[in-house]
Amino acid sequence: MTATPQFVPSDIEIAQQARLRTITAVAADLGLAPDDIDQYGRYKAKLPLALASQPPKGRLVLVTAISPTPAGEGKSTVSVGLSQAFRRLGHNAVLCMREPSLGPVFGVKGGAAGGGYAQVLPMDDINLHFTGDFHAIASAHSLLSAMLDNHLYHGNALGLDVKRITWPRTIDMNDRALRQAIIGVGAGNGVMREERWVIIPASEVMAIVALASDAEDLEQRLGNIIVGTTSGKERTPVRARDLQATGAMSLLLKDALRPNLVQTLEGGPAILHAGPFGNIAHGCNSLVATRAGLALADIVVTEAGFGSDLGAEKFFDIKCRAGGLNPEAAVLVATVRSLKMQGGLPKNMLDQEDLGALERGLPHLAHHITNVRQFGVPVVVAINRRLSDTDAELTMVADYAAKYGVRVALCDVWANGGAGGEALAHEVLALLDSKSAEFRPLYDTERPIREKIETIAAKVYGADGVDYSPAAEKSIAWLEQHGMGNTPVCMAKTQYSLSDDASKLGVPTNFRMTVQEVSGSAGAGFVVAKCGDIMTMPGLSKSPAAERMKVRPDGTIEGLS
Amino acid sequence: MTATPQFVPSDIEIAQQARLRTITAVAADLGLAPDDIDQYGRYKAKLPLALASQPPKGRLVLVTAISPTPAGEGKSTVSVGLSQAFRRLGHNAVLCMREPSLGPVFGVKGGAAGGGYAQVLPMDDINLHFTGDFHAIASAHSLLSAMLDNHLYHGNALGLDVKRITWPRTIDMNDRALRQAIIGVGAGNGVMREERWVIIPASEVMAIVALASDAEDLEQRLGNIIVGTTSGKERTPVRARDLQATGAMSLLLKDALRPNLVQTLEGGPAILHAGPFGNIAHGCNSLVATRAGLALADIVVTEAGFGSDLGAEKFFDIKCRAGGLNPEAAVLVATVRSLKMQGGLPKNMLDQEDLGALERGLPHLAHHITNVRQFGVPVVVAINRRLSDTDAELTMVADYAAKYGVRVALCDVWANGGAGGEALAHEVLALLDSKSAEFRPLYDTERPIREKIETIAAKVYGADGVDYSPAAEKSIAWLEQHGMGNTPVCMAKTQYSLSDDASKLGVPTNFRMTVQEVSGSAGAGFVVAKCGDIMTMPGLSKSPAAERMKVRPDGTIEGLS
Repeated sequence: MTATPQFVPSDIEIAQQARLRTITAVAADLGLAPDDIDQYGRYKAKLPLALASQPPKGRLVLVTAISPTPAGEGKSTVSVGLSQAFRRLGHNAVLCMREPSLGPVFGVKGGAAGGGYAQVLPMDDINLHFTGDFHAIASAHSLLSAMLDNHLYHGNALGLDVKRITWPRTIDMNDRALRQAIIGVGAGNGVMREERWVIIPASEVMAIVALASDAEDLEQRLGNIIVGTTSGKERTPVRARDLQATGAMSLLLKDALRPNLVQTLEGGPAILHAGPFGNIAHGCNSLVATRAGLALADIVVTEAGFGSDLGAEKFFDIKCRAGGLNPEAAVLVATVRSLKMQGGLPKNMLDQEDLGALERGLPHLAHHITNVRQFGVPVVVAINRRLSDTDAELTMVADYAAKYGVRVALCDVWANGGAGGEALAHEVLALLDSKSAEFRPLYDTERPIREKIETIAAKVYGADGVDYSPAAEKSIAWLEQHGMGNTPVCMAKTQYSLSDDASKLGVPTNFRMTVQEVSGSAGAGFVVAKCGDIMTMPGLSKSPAAERMKVRPDGTIEGLS
Repeated sequence: MTATPQFVPSDIEIAQQARLRTITAVAADLGLAPDDIDQYGRYKAKLPLALASQPPKGRLVLVTAISPTPAGEGKSTVSVGLSQAFRRLGHNAVLCMREPSLGPVFGVKGGAAGGGYAQVLPMDDINLHFTGDFHAIASAHSLLSAMLDNHLYHGNALGLDVKRITWPRTIDMNDRALRQAIIGVGAGNGVMREERWVIIPASEVMAIVALASDAEDLEQRLGNIIVGTTSGKERTPVRARDLQATGAMSLLLKDALRPNLVQTLEGGPAILHAGPFGNIAHGCNSLVATRAGLALADIVVTEAGFGSDLGAEKFFDIKCRAGGLNPEAAVLVATVRSLKMQGGLPKNMLDQEDLGALERGLPHLAHHITNVRQFGVPVVVAINRRLSDTDAELTMVADYAAKYGVRVALCDVWANGGAGGEALAHEVLALLDSKSAEFRPLYDTERPIREKIETIAAKVYGADGVDYSPAAEKSIAWLEQHGMGNTPVCMAKTQYSLSDDASKLGVPTNFRMTVQEVSGSAGAGFVVAKCGDIMTMPGLSKSPAAERMKVRPDGTIEGLS
């Protein structure tokens, strides 16, 4: 274990001081010639899509986490640091992650590409327009919106029920005022109707780009998108294909479907591609990115959104199933601080040693370990070390994990980069070498929608049962009647609790879930079951990060972090 | 004159058959090393912004046209072909043009980058996302919108009058249903108010990017944007600066401000950058693109929107004035067919020789010649040749022009590329060598707003006078009171007539103009005077071009033209 320094510069300072390798040099490490890639500036490139169809040679490692708390777990930072550590140990490893959305960058976060000495670079480009993927996805989504309203305006030959249009508009911005609107106001300006905007990670086109296996599959999925239903008793789905929008949408997405190559702070390859939400979508980087990584590298480190109850479950049941992926090991990230919060300690007391709170929080860790293991994937716990952690606390976590037959590795990649992740890398290598993985999804997609929901609720969340709103029951019947009965289920619930009640920390028991709304993402290929309100268009705070951003006279930037 | 072939393949066929040079090779022709540029794929690059601050070595040639008709004039095609011709004649010439907007691509046009054998490539990329400039501009614009509504939501400390917000939302899409809307509907979703969307070429941020001389000037202009006024009698302007949005907007635009390098079908350099509308904005490619061209090449061919009454006037009075540019020659594009339409011939009869209609149309040509000449810039008429043109018709045009002391060159660059533009290139070179240009703007910006409007109306449109709506009069007073009295005026009127009545072809006389609305684009640095309704958000047709687009299994595309 390397020593944790008392002072680490800010993320942006570290990023700006880094000496980047040219992207052609990074690509060369993966056996790619300059002509194999398309450069976007000196430090970004698009990879060829064909890589995603090549046979995998790498082994797939998932980084997941316990349920997120305000204490911070650092899953992305550990993912970056672990890939850095593998390279330090001489392995040809590649990192696969999601691309960040602009909305949160200008809202609260000010950036999202790891942190400290475990970052992905060029940080500013990645946090701004990057290679334009999200803009292309927004364009394709918006074109479908425009063609839909244009169809209504020109006579509505498909007989769409204007009150039952489900396709929203989208923008990559935190824009509260667009959550609910009336459009088509005024003479000659189309059909007046209600509309809502979702932020781009919530767009079904984002989920489609993330799950498509190639250009043909992309087009097929785009065509399947359900935009609404016909009027009257029939309520037949109306699809993007019926609006003849599929070809033009594919055209807009032809480059966005190609994975992006960048680098970690230590110059190793990182493939960043797509970024669907982890609640109403499956929360993973694209399938083509992961497959390209597996074709190019010996070890692929990837991550999934939120805790293992949301991200890992969807990674396994939706992404791995769709893409025929075979995950061979998982890393479960936790911090002592966040385990103490799960044990009931308030945020302002996390700096003090509290073995009681930690002990009460450890069953939460156990629950996530069990979650991952039931998919047949072996797991190692990564304790993302913080300065306030005491030896007694760390020992308690290690002893507890030992009871579960799970190894614990400390890491401090934030402060020490790849060197701080070597212990973890060794543990992961041991898991991979054990060849103990026997990956299997949790449920059979051919089972009824309710049964699939109830399987996830019981086995992953620990719920005693599931209740359905009348609207949800009606939707389930309609979806099963219209060919959506045999897809995976994408559960949308709070990320802060294993249950559907954000206030219940630790391991909630004796609870039932309530599914309030069910909808079909027919293009993405899953049914979304919403337990509670899910925010699909964030707002800006009273003092958003955007107010503190600027370009300095020398061209460097300020305010991203 | 080369022979005009009877059959020319479609634009996209020609583009797809073209063998492109690598963009590094194109850049090398301009004396730029691979490290001087940032590649975006193999055939596009961003130029360094610093080029725009280097001393000009090139001579500037403007391509303008008579008023547009459905007969087609081909101004862009002639611009491309002329730059190709200069290179064939051994000159180091560069083309500077606007970037196309996605909206029209999916609407009617299916593409916009010249035509036939006078195109700019890669045509599909240019017509789709290109290097992401328009997306970045949309993001910067949208961020200001979101921050504005966020300000209202969090208490409206600046005291904005919600009924007098002038900053619209934007999207790069033809989306009729967004022309007029109610946003902020529902509890917790912000302040409910009217909103309108404009397409991205109508965004003031687009005009700002097109007129900014460097990053500092960009930030200054962004800060100056007026988003609305305070309530009450004062009606003080509220600016983007007051919302603390300027820094983040600059950050979003830092790459979009850099000009893009591509190539013509014959491999010559073309700089495509920015694309403001030609009515409510000034309709020219960016100042930094033109300046970069002048720093790199011996001859810069550039164009301005619509006819000389709109595009050339604004090019001279707004862009050249703002940027200290010195145009030395102008090309006025016309076709025999369009002159016959100006002479009253209906569209379905244009294929027949009609010397009478042509003769009646020629004064329209003369008016545009005079327009350009009054700016002190010598002009050559380019007849963009069509198959139906007869020798007698061409002779009549040449004889008429001779009376005005203006040379006429035939060109058929559409069918023959640069070879079809050599005659025109020789005429332009003769003009340049004559050193007869004495460029001067039409009016003094220090004069009152009304006087500036009336000068343009009288000298460029031939109006007898100008009337103002009460709202326009009120706005003019407010603008002069708030520091906008000494900027250029940007006239927004129909492009189809020299007057403000689209149905009046030829040379309208005995008419007065009516200014209905006046507004301040304080960031762009001009006052917009609207004569009539100006469409800032187009709709899609009943059968939009988007319906016929697709990506073929081999990755090539269909439906752009």
